[in-house]
Amino acid sequence: MKRIGILTSGGDAPGMNAAIRAVTKTAISNGLEVFGIRYGFAGLVAGDFVALTAEDVDHKISQGGTFLYSARYPEFAQEEVQKKGAEQLRSHGIDAVIVIGGDGSYHGALALTRLGINSIGLPGTIDNDIPYTDYTIGFSSACRTAMDAIDKIRDTAASHHRVFIVNVMGRECGDIAMRVGVATGADAIVIPERPYDIKEIAETLKRHFADGKDNGIIVLAEGVMSADKFKDELLKYGDFDARANVLAHMQRGGSPTVTDRVNATKMGNYAVKLLLDGKGGLAVGIENSKLATHDILDLFDGKHQGDYALLDINKEMNK
Amino acid sequence: MKRIGILTSGGDAPGMNAAIRAVTKTAISNGLEVFGIRYGFAGLVAGDFVALTAEDVDHKISQGGTFLYSARYPEFAQEEVQKKGAEQLRSHGIDAVIVIGGDGSYHGALALTRLGINSIGLPGTIDNDIPYTDYTIGFSSACRTAMDAIDKIRDTAASHHRVFIVNVMGRECGDIAMRVGVATGADAIVIPERPYDIKEIAETLKRHFADGKDNGIIVLAEGVMSADKFKDELLKYGDFDARANVLAHMQRGGSPTVTDRVNATKMGNYAVKLLLDGKGGLAVGIENSKLATHDILDLFDGKHQGDYALLDINKEMNK
Amino acid sequence: MKRIGILTSGGDAPGMNAAIRAVTKTAISNGLEVFGIRYGFAGLVAGDFVALTAEDVDHKISQGGTFLYSARYPEFAQEEVQKKGAEQLRSHGIDAVIVIGGDGSYHGALALTRLGINSIGLPGTIDNDIPYTDYTIGFSSACRTAMDAIDKIRDTAASHHRVFIVNVMGRECGDIAMRVGVATGADAIVIPERPYDIKEIAETLKRHFADGKDNGIIVLAEGVMSADKFKDELLKYGDFDARANVLAHMQRGGSPTVTDRVNATKMGNYAVKLLLDGKGGLAVGIENSKLATHDILDLFDGKHQGDYALLDINKEMNK
Amino acid sequence: MKRIGILTSGGDAPGMNAAIRAVTKTAISNGLEVFGIRYGFAGLVAGDFVALTAEDVDHKISQGGTFLYSARYPEFAQEEVQKKGAEQLRSHGIDAVIVIGGDGSYHGALALTRLGINSIGLPGTIDNDIPYTDYTIGFSSACRTAMDAIDKIRDTAASHHRVFIVNVMGRECGDIAMRVGVATGADAIVIPERPYDIKEIAETLKRHFADGKDNGIIVLAEGVMSADKFKDELLKYGDFDARANVLAHMQRGGSPTVTDRVNATKMGNYAVKLLLDGKGGLAVGIENSKLATHDILDLFDGKHQGDYALLDINKEMNK
Repeated sequence: MKRIGILTSGGDAPGMNAAIRAVTKTAISNGLEVFGIRYGFAGLVAGDFVALTAEDVDHKISQGGTFLYSARYPEFAQEEVQKKGAEQLRSHGIDAVIVIGGDGSYHGALALTRLGINSIGLPGTIDNDIPYTDYTIGFSSACRTAMDAIDKIRDTAASHHRVFIVNVMGRECGDIAMRVGVATGADAIVIPERPYDIKEIAETLKRHFADGKDNGIIVLAEGVMSADKFKDELLKYGDFDARANVLAHMQRGGSPTVTDRVNATKMGNYAVKLLLDGKGGLAVGIENSKLATHDILDLFDGKHQGDYALLDINKEMNK
Repeated sequence: MKRIGILTSGGDAPGMNAAIRAVTKTAISNGLEVFGIRYGFAGLVAGDFVALTAEDVDHKISQGGTFLYSARYPEFAQEEVQKKGAEQLRSHGIDAVIVIGGDGSYHGALALTRLGINSIGLPGTIDNDIPYTDYTIGFSSACRTAMDAIDKIRDTAASHHRVFIVNVMGRECGDIAMRVGVATGADAIVIPERPYDIKEIAETLKRHFADGKDNGIIVLAEGVMSADKFKDELLKYGDFDARANVLAHMQRGGSPTVTDRVNATKMGNYAVKLLLDGKGGLAVGIENSKLATHDILDLFDGKHQGDYALLDINKEMNK
Repeated sequence: MKRIGILTSGGDAPGMNAAIRAVTKTAISNGLEVFGIRYGFAGLVAGDFVALTAEDVDHKISQGGTFLYSARYPEFAQEEVQKKGAEQLRSHGIDAVIVIGGDGSYHGALALTRLGINSIGLPGTIDNDIPYTDYTIGFSSACRTAMDAIDKIRDTAASHHRVFIVNVMGRECGDIAMRVGVATGADAIVIPERPYDIKEIAETLKRHFADGKDNGIIVLAEGVMSADKFKDELLKYGDFDARANVLAHMQRGGSPTVTDRVNATKMGNYAVKLLLDGKGGLAVGIENSKLATHDILDLFDGKHQGDYALLDINKEMNK
Repeated sequence: MKRIGILTSGGDAPGMNAAIRAVTKTAISNGLEVFGIRYGFAGLVAGDFVALTAEDVDHKISQGGTFLYSARYPEFAQEEVQKKGAEQLRSHGIDAVIVIGGDGSYHGALALTRLGINSIGLPGTIDNDIPYTDYTIGFSSACRTAMDAIDKIRDTAASHHRVFIVNVMGRECGDIAMRVGVATGADAIVIPERPYDIKEIAETLKRHFADGKDNGIIVLAEGVMSADKFKDELLKYGDFDARANVLAHMQRGGSPTVTDRVNATKMGNYAVKLLLDGKGGLAVGIENSKLATHDILDLFDGKHQGDYALLDINKEMNK
């Protein structure tokens, strides 16, 4: 192995650049050449490759987004397109690839491995919805951004004794909502994986206001329903001065947190070593604070387990 | 004069607490007693007064919101209600009042002054829409929060070559939009006070992408139209990967900036001195970097002048 | 058990307030009364107790420091002083105590338990130097603050092609240095637990500058030597434009991170449950991402294990 | 005029990149070519020029430091070196230059103008010590960084009832100290331009602690004396638990504030227009919130006037 490629795929996430940096610097230290593949699998098939030096990535660790860009490319599900991609890599002398991204990225990495290009997948998505890893790259930063926003929202909620329903990202995964809800002391946390009772939430808010609390915060994962709809439902059970708030895309950006930078660096470094060991078709994760690998195939059957105890703790404290 | 009151009215804004602190500490230094009036004019009429010491306000300078709370209270437009308020103050020995807030606050301050309670108005609103002042308390912090959010949004815009239409606060006043638009290098800034041409904006974006720019940001004051509607209009003139984003209430919160803390402190300090001089019915502002006062009556006829040159500069740079 | 006390001891750390909040709200939900003990063990002996309600702690989760205050009190090593403390608790009807702090706190908690007051210790210190826990309360926030500062320092380092030796906290424990060093892409990380070679570090910096890098960052744990001394040593091996920088006490403050708030909440909640189960003399920690307990006695023999692999990864990437 | 150059000189400051961006984009919009001159006047003499496009500067507005780099170059005081510089510019077809920096930069800009290369100076320094401008580029960001640090320091000060003497930048100019001191509610502000009385400061602190205040903050401009020395002096007048703290170089970095970005953009834009009007030898500033110009020669005799009323306000509030 002389030359490896790296690409980012799917939605961008803070820490992707830190991972690209770690891959680049580790590979160069081990005598490899590194090519950045721009625009994900689309760029892979198109041959949009740029050589990366250690200096190219020097200032990237602190920058959000992905400087290699990302792009939707459903065409890569087709075998002939995958083959074209593998040929592009071979014709550029690229022997192996590291893919950073969400669900779809793993399918691409597995396809390339089967075509003889060893590929390793790194979990890069703010949603934290990848099986067999406790942390995805970007999850920590998204939680930080959402928490900072809700801290600000609480200021205005308290000034006016209002209730805010704050929609955070997470279509099928309530991890951001749970962690941010606990971190902001939310009165209630609502996620798609668990039942909830709007009437009970309304009762909690009423009790809190009666006890002298000056604000109400409900953290709602976007996958449950819209914040506006939730507000309408809530108002059936109480006469609150309520507002709906959608944090949206800012959760995807910003300089990554310590956790995302460190996790991205550890996983990027590890991925290169796996390639040097001749491995491919593997997904890297962090389980119980330790680096771990699984066959990519296992991920397709697996299901991410959130830290649902956070829900119980939050409920208990708001009794 | 032995005892003064202070209240916050209308929408809360970062720096209100810094102003309350400055009023309290200045007044105490000058031998006065200070009472916080909670919940704005509603609390004034209800007699919801709390004595304030220097220690009570010690940690408040860095906190967003208003710890005296605010409340809507349109009833204060009625003369009999105003009289009840003046009586409450007199029965508590409160000789003068400082009111921090937006438009409505000035009407209340003038009414009290006419009823013999000297009152001074301080401009407290994130919108910066008060006549005869270049800066309102909260405007700087709101701009900071909006800029930070758009910096993050740009990360994800660039990763995917997207256009974001970002709705910032400002119903009738484009000051936040102009300042934040320039500070984030927006491709276009759209405000209610000036005409705009969506087709021209679309052409600018196209030219930028053609030149190699990897993102598009349009900063839209909420008073113009919704971000969703603007997006729909924009897509008539170009095939952009566009997203609408509403920053909403977080712009009202957060620890105040240096500018808001310093302006709030200067104005709060000055307001007490005006009262000590026997003045009332005045609005304090900062004009051309200097403390200034105007009769509150003048404000009702006046119109805030934004720094519209920012629009021209931004347009020129995006030609 | 009807009434529990809570105190903070030793150096303050961001997240202590979040832990106090979690203890208070969990205890109240379980029918207990909670008393805050001010000024650590000094206040315990003096009987400086304040009743805490859920509303008292409502806004505390986002605030740095400890609102119960802390104080040095070596006198609590004496048995008669410990007995006086236990009596104070009993005379106030306090049956059990939760202690948040560093090393010294555990000795106090154990002493109280032996005197019949069940006590639980929570790890509260930015240094992360407590055995049997991967995270102490405050460690994450201190890393965040140090990283943010170094990100800023890098801006000026790069503008002038300078080398900065940045002293971060950690007398005997290099955890902050390692995590922050990796997160900022430091050229070298120097900690007290591992050997280092200043000449080798100088060679790394020279190679980096020769390759076109525009800045050099060395993250130095304070326990190794002063940044000034390190700079002098470094200059023996190379003609760098070098500056020494000490981040100091700001690392102790600031609004806690998501991680510190969530960890503090989980551990505070858990500590109350342990007391409800009749337990005492235990230290709570987080091991491999899970809540764990150990006899406090074990901690005195134990030694915190840092994630020293971070050093190797950083070295490998800077080869 | 077909082609202009731009350079940054002296200590770097947040907002310099925003100014470079504004110059570049304005110049290109007006049909000019722009060359970045790297490493200040040293690079000017060496001919280290790089063509700049609008896309090159697209992401720079939010980045601290100066991507054109800066360097000390006292040799530029010599006439023959200045002539060599002018020749370099001419041989590259560069007709005019914009210089961003502190004191020294103006001497260079004037020298070039006298040699027939119209040059305009922009005030770029965090110290705010340039005559005839209320704001220098970088001043606002430095104040923000210092304030954020002191907010954190206050957390730990309060937890332990400590006094912190915080050294902020400003050798001969107390502007950062005054603004940050007011913004953090400092007990005392000490600057080089005004007398101070350490005994009186000690009395203030004692009175505050006696009244129940839980912390003490003294903001000290570095030009007065070291924080350590100040601490020693202070301890002669009172038995405080005091700590000295030096914020140092982080004040030079970080993403610029709204104010610095907007001021830098306005001044950069204006400087190009002055060149288009055939002007040279001018210094651009912001006076009373308006763009203004002065002959560079005037600056050498002028003296920056700080907002010393801030000192009086702070003293009055701490009586």
